Amino acid sequence: MAVLDIDFTPAEQLDLQDLNQHVLKAEYAIRGAIPMRAEQIQDQINLDPESVPFDRITTANIGNPQQLQQKPLTFSRQVVSVLQYPDMLQHRDALVKSGAFNADALDRAQVLLDKIGGSVGAYSSSQGVYGIRETVAKYITDRDEGEPASPADIFLTDGATRGVTYLLSLLCKGPEVGVLIPIPQYPVYTASLTLYNTTAIPYYLDEKSGWSTDAREIEQQIQGAIAKGVKPSVIVVINPGNPTGSVLKPEVMEDIVTLAAKYGMVILADEVYQENVFSEERKFYSFKRVLRDLQRRHPQVYQNVQLASIHSTSKGVFGECGQRGGYLELIGFKKSVREMILKLASLSICAVVTGQAMVDLMVCPPAEGDESYELDKTERQNIHDTLKQRGELLYDTFQSLEGIECQKPQGAMYLFPRLKFPPRVLEEAKKADMQPDEFYCHALLEATGICVVPGTGFGQEEGTSHLRTTFLAPGTEWIQKWKTFHQDFYSKYNN
Amino acid sequence: MAVLDIDFTPAEQLDLQDLNQHVLKAEYAIRGAIPMRAEQIQDQINLDPESVPFDRITTANIGNPQQLQQKPLTFSRQVVSVLQYPDMLQHRDALVKSGAFNADALDRAQVLLDKIGGSVGAYSSSQGVYGIRETVAKYITDRDEGEPASPADIFLTDGATRGVTYLLSLLCKGPEVGVLIPIPQYPVYTASLTLYNTTAIPYYLDEKSGWSTDAREIEQQIQGAIAKGVKPSVIVVINPGNPTGSVLKPEVMEDIVTLAAKYGMVILADEVYQENVFSEERKFYSFKRVLRDLQRRHPQVYQNVQLASIHSTSKGVFGECGQRGGYLELIGFKKSVREMILKLASLSICAVVTGQAMVDLMVCPPAEGDESYELDKTERQNIHDTLKQRGELLYDTFQSLEGIECQKPQGAMYLFPRLKFPPRVLEEAKKADMQPDEFYCHALLEATGICVVPGTGFGQEEGTSHLRTTFLAPGTEWIQKWKTFHQDFYSKYNN
Repeated sequence: MAVLDIDFTPAEQLDLQDLNQHVLKAEYAIRGAIPMRAEQIQDQINLDPESVPFDRITTANIGNPQQLQQKPLTFSRQVVSVLQYPDMLQHRDALVKSGAFNADALDRAQVLLDKIGGSVGAYSSSQGVYGIRETVAKYITDRDEGEPASPADIFLTDGATRGVTYLLSLLCKGPEVGVLIPIPQYPVYTASLTLYNTTAIPYYLDEKSGWSTDAREIEQQIQGAIAKGVKPSVIVVINPGNPTGSVLKPEVMEDIVTLAAKYGMVILADEVYQENVFSEERKFYSFKRVLRDLQRRHPQVYQNVQLASIHSTSKGVFGECGQRGGYLELIGFKKSVREMILKLASLSICAVVTGQAMVDLMVCPPAEGDESYELDKTERQNIHDTLKQRGELLYDTFQSLEGIECQKPQGAMYLFPRLKFPPRVLEEAKKADMQPDEFYCHALLEATGICVVPGTGFGQEEGTSHLRTTFLAPGTEWIQKWKTFHQDFYSKYNN
Repeated sequence: MAVLDIDFTPAEQLDLQDLNQHVLKAEYAIRGAIPMRAEQIQDQINLDPESVPFDRITTANIGNPQQLQQKPLTFSRQVVSVLQYPDMLQHRDALVKSGAFNADALDRAQVLLDKIGGSVGAYSSSQGVYGIRETVAKYITDRDEGEPASPADIFLTDGATRGVTYLLSLLCKGPEVGVLIPIPQYPVYTASLTLYNTTAIPYYLDEKSGWSTDAREIEQQIQGAIAKGVKPSVIVVINPGNPTGSVLKPEVMEDIVTLAAKYGMVILADEVYQENVFSEERKFYSFKRVLRDLQRRHPQVYQNVQLASIHSTSKGVFGECGQRGGYLELIGFKKSVREMILKLASLSICAVVTGQAMVDLMVCPPAEGDESYELDKTERQNIHDTLKQRGELLYDTFQSLEGIECQKPQGAMYLFPRLKFPPRVLEEAKKADMQPDEFYCHALLEATGICVVPGTGFGQEEGTSHLRTTFLAPGTEWIQKWKTFHQDFYSKYNN
């Protein structure tokens, strides 16, 4: 029998003022107002397809390739399928004979199962399965043309974001700490800084020169922050750029490493688009490689530089977003600091084990001579080529339109064109209590079902307007619809 | 060419004092000093099996059933295997004829694929796949004998911990906010409160009466906190208890709901062990069911009560820890507050999609008449019975030993016995700069390879000593070794 008296005035429900105010202030436009409106419209289409002037939402707001019919790589999916049901290895002959599975996928699954300890249903160590971290270290060594990497430096994480979270929640000790953020940026960075009550120090990328990064601009911002009593502790660099698609040159990266050495800033290198380089003139260089090279040339100057690099199974040609695979490589940190990262990881016990396996498969595809090699290679090449073509097609379309200016895509999976609006758009936006780019993106969504994110969500220079769109959606119909919308929008507001 | 000058004194590496001090202070004993020492010993065994007096580590520190040879449920693994490689559905006949797969698993996989939108490699909505949330709502409705549940109230999360993190990071606005925590408790709660710089208000469970919860003890703690200027905003209840294994009676739960109504506290109901009830005399009642019943009887009193219930695929008979499946059900929150939870979820985009599918399979097994029904039922029953037997065996062993007192296990997968040490143990522990229970657990590990967690990691009444052990490890050999160790330990220090 309950013992307490119920003769009291009940307390109220929680309201916004009772909550952590930093959560309230954090903004994440990728899944913000426009994508939410798009979900509403999708529900409306499901109930009554005639109620809107298009038959589906085109989700160009988020890099989610498999939502847009990109097929997963066969080999990796065969392997993870076996990991989920190892009993099928007892039916090896039937599986291979029927053509359902390649034999080398079954073999690779057995190797991975042994690394994992027998079941993807068991927690792994909090840093991640050791044998998978070995594979990642080998990949990094090869990628960086022989710069050694160690499994001890690799942390397997649920997607790349989790690595960012561990690092920033450890380094952000309050508003007196500053984190340099490129503008425009991927908004998970500013949102995290708001959550952790730490100061964002913006540095501006130069649109005119293809969104290039200028070390002198960065140093100016550093000095401005120091003058205001803020200590710059971290510099975030996204390479290839999100949302800009720009690919950094090694000499610019050297300058960034120099600033990190001079001011004691951790470099947080968001390198999740390292496989998405589409320009013939650019090549991806990792920050690790640039750092190691500088350390060889000037050991005294660069010996203390601390670098954290993140990568993910969600992008590249893998596009396995829903699998939540990723890793973090930590270079140059003191042991005591790394132990704190491990403690944060241990609080969520471990990253999803199949996601860890996906990381292994991403960085170690079938080798030449393996049964699955040709198919895997062809699938990877096709996805790469398709992305490149789609990016170029969308870029060419923007080039043909009035009021829109776009930098040529070098990498990643986004375009971030600038919109120059007639004065009437600015007036109408103001009336609707929106920024002009929000006004345009809302109108685009309502007219065509195309969902993109306004530049305000990424940060942009005062007085400019942009939008970010992925170039993942298949076909040309959506691009044609966008073109028509754009022309109508400009002729409507030009008068 | 790099443009910056390198003629400067390089900055130092980060040190502990540069970090977020809340992270430094957070403690998580489940993966703390003793489990870390166990990992070292395991490495040592791998290098030189002769170097320690046992052949393996017995990990009884963490509820990780599949690490200890618990077999996953066949039906659910067949389904998720197909989700990873849907192309195999084209070979349906061969798969079924060979006996590798049951036909109903292939059918269920197709249903789930349709719900998910075709690929587990695409991000889902941040709240989780709608069709899976529908399945969860149906499960909750059945479990609570008809109390309706809605998919709109369900959030699919990466394991249960993520749900806890969302909620606490939203509600913990600073040290003026208090969160009631049972002592002993699962240490992720105190660790989170330390991270979020919020005040833990301990309430003590009564060991003598099988770790029961007393509402008057809780109200006393609430009033003490208020007197110190701390507002109690959340009460954490773990039912069945971790580490205590105790199962709450509905009348005690009614009192807790009454306190929540009176003081405006959110009830955070950790119900991850809801399937792990082993005592004939106890039955699991959900907080939701108790709340709805009270709301019917006294609507005015209970209308504002806010409840968050978490569940996970990691425990029960599923034991799918590495799959990171879980859900959070939110009851009675304002829409604006729920939107903030959704914002936090959207910052990590979505929970792993196969983990979401695992939740669906956990709560909706094959139905009577389905091809896989008998096998699935037998597997579930066997796991349940095995756990029960292992718990009882370990309990009986503790009963037979000097200096150890243990409450009869009612649920969960742990025992939390009390250790009464001879004075010499206390002296030796002091010399070793350890708590007495740490001293015992270290000695147990070094002598037998059995890894358990000292009671200090969970909180315990001043002057008492405990340890937490899972009862998942198979066989009786480890129990025999423990018994011998214990007897030797006591005879050594009794003199």
